[in-house]
Amino acid sequence: MRVPVPLAHAHRLLNHGPTTLVSTAHGGRRNVMAAAWVMPLDFEPPKFAAVVAADTFTRELLLASGECVLHAPTTAQIDLTMAVGNTSGRERDKFQALGIPTEPGGIVQAPLVAGCGAWLECRRLPEPAIEQRYDLFVLECVAAWADDSLWQKGEWHFSPGGARTIHHCKGGLFYTTGERLQASRKS
Amino acid sequence: MRVPVPLAHAHRLLNHGPTTLVSTAHGGRRNVMAAAWVMPLDFEPPKFAAVVAADTFTRELLLASGECVLHAPTTAQIDLTMAVGNTSGRERDKFQALGIPTEPGGIVQAPLVAGCGAWLECRRLPEPAIEQRYDLFVLECVAAWADDSLWQKGEWHFSPGGARTIHHCKGGLFYTTGERLQASRKS
Repeated sequence: MRVPVPLAHAHRLLNHGPTTLVSTAHGGRRNVMAAAWVMPLDFEPPKFAAVVAADTFTRELLLASGECVLHAPTTAQIDLTMAVGNTSGRERDKFQALGIPTEPGGIVQAPLVAGCGAWLECRRLPEPAIEQRYDLFVLECVAAWADDSLWQKGEWHFSPGGARTIHHCKGGLFYTTGERLQASRKS
Repeated sequence: MRVPVPLAHAHRLLNHGPTTLVSTAHGGRRNVMAAAWVMPLDFEPPKFAAVVAADTFTRELLLASGECVLHAPTTAQIDLTMAVGNTSGRERDKFQALGIPTEPGGIVQAPLVAGCGAWLECRRLPEPAIEQRYDLFVLECVAAWADDSLWQKGEWHFSPGGARTIHHCKGGLFYTTGERLQASRKS
């Protein structure tokens, strides 16, 4: 079940470096793409940095709407993650073409891709210089959600054989998020 | 054994979002800290984005030297990763205090922490506005290395029970890099 995550914990949803999906919507159109180059940038208010290439329809909708949703897809969504990463949404609605179920977000207009491990509704903090120079966007998270079968008490908890977040290596190659390890020196 | 990685593959060393160590050196002083908020920013020449907080000795040495080394530590280095993340190197040399073995790099002056899975020698691309606003640094990788027991043919390969790269969740809690999964749709 999708449950709200306090904004103070939002950075932890992506702190372990999983690959993401980025959804956008504007003027009756919507899109979703895969993005591995996304990371936390600040704790509270939570900010994230995301690379969105110059020629993408996602960038067009992100700039027009000033909003997007970052998602942490799971092992069950590897083929979906590749599929939305390999095609453009400019000519066709990927949600419809690929049969991707969605849910409405709480604050932003961009749809939430159903079945993910986490969702971060974000607003763009305009930084035109680095957007143009590095395709790098700064986003402030305004609402966060997680699947309570994977996220409990402010931490990811993955069961043996169950769904896990995924990390992109290259092409169609991913790694799952593996075993929990506790350092002996606690911070 | 530490082997060179072609710069065209350097982004793949951190594409899966592991936590990193950042070493720096300037004027006879040196330091190392842990940084989870590091990600690729471009393919070739390879660039990376890294968050380095304002009050850190690492930032002082990075600004003074214009250089650093990003490392992907492994499961064997979890306690080391926490230890260098919890103390400042301003008052004492962490390498000496914690008995951290080092090797000289090929291009930059900052030392390489021995025993890691990957090493990325980097130069700072000055971006004062975002450094000050977000503690965000843009780095160009000028030399890359990997341990050939973990990195073969441009990919990470982890053996059951062997060392793996690690992903930071919060405090002393990490996840290992888990199982390889190949999507059925290849890019």
